Amino acid sequence: MRDILFRQAQIEDLRDIVRLLGDDELGSQREKTTSDLDPSYMHAFEAIYADPHNCIYVVEQEGKVKGCLQLTLIPNLSFAGAWRGQIEGVRIDRSLRGTGIGTDFFRWVLEKARKSNCKIVQLTMNAARTKTHAFYEKIGFEATHTGFKLYF
Amino acid sequence: MRDILFRQAQIEDLRDIVRLLGDDELGSQREKTTSDLDPSYMHAFEAIYADPHNCIYVVEQEGKVKGCLQLTLIPNLSFAGAWRGQIEGVRIDRSLRGTGIGTDFFRWVLEKARKSNCKIVQLTMNAARTKTHAFYEKIGFEATHTGFKLYF
Repeated sequence: MRDILFRQAQIEDLRDIVRLLGDDELGSQREKTTSDLDPSYMHAFEAIYADPHNCIYVVEQEGKVKGCLQLTLIPNLSFAGAWRGQIEGVRIDRSLRGTGIGTDFFRWVLEKARKSNCKIVQLTMNAARTKTHAFYEKIGFEATHTGFKLYF
Repeated sequence: MRDILFRQAQIEDLRDIVRLLGDDELGSQREKTTSDLDPSYMHAFEAIYADPHNCIYVVEQEGKVKGCLQLTLIPNLSFAGAWRGQIEGVRIDRSLRGTGIGTDFFRWVLEKARKSNCKIVQLTMNAARTKTHAFYEKIGFEATHTGFKLYF
């Protein structure tokens, strides 16, 4: 696979990232993917970018953003004061699914988390995404937990 | 129930919090509950206390810490740039279980998250904790997700 790059997201990538978030069975119901980017995404991106414990990473292919996720580093008391890496908002463009790029991207991000002193990396997956379950287990995640959400 | 107070944890509470984390079927296998507090807990507490997006809250009864949890505020792009509240390390002392104090504590913390502009609050529960499932559903959480963990 040619010209694949993993890197931190910049503000110029935001429109592509929002497109990826919305190009999804569940995401299409909750994202505002109008041609003018909703200012709420800009504010959120700025808050993430300004926070040393939050970072969005992207997959770039031939100058285009083809994947994204957010890594949050959380200081925690459990497990004798272990830092946790929390992953949210994972998307891989349809054109790259099944190519192994998603696995490579995850391994690259896991290495970032490990170097940031994380002892645990965690994520939740909507149980409706049945195909994604095997992907995470292949990378080394274990589905030991139930994920609860409450929406205000 | 008399003399119950919900408040932010202070460094003086740390020994009691670590005791609560360890007084648990799963926690007893992973916490260092020796009489001298392991310095790793001190370092973690300091990192949490210094971070405006992380806070440990406790239940105090008659001057003693009887419950705890950590709330992390995460800026996020999904759901049109909604902040998320993430809850970790929930413990209620055995003496207070079934009294409704846990529910009151959670409602108080959820209000903190709502006032901090969170649109979602989330947590994961080890699937082995079968008794706790109903507790979270009663408060308003929905068990829609699978929680994956990877330990380095």
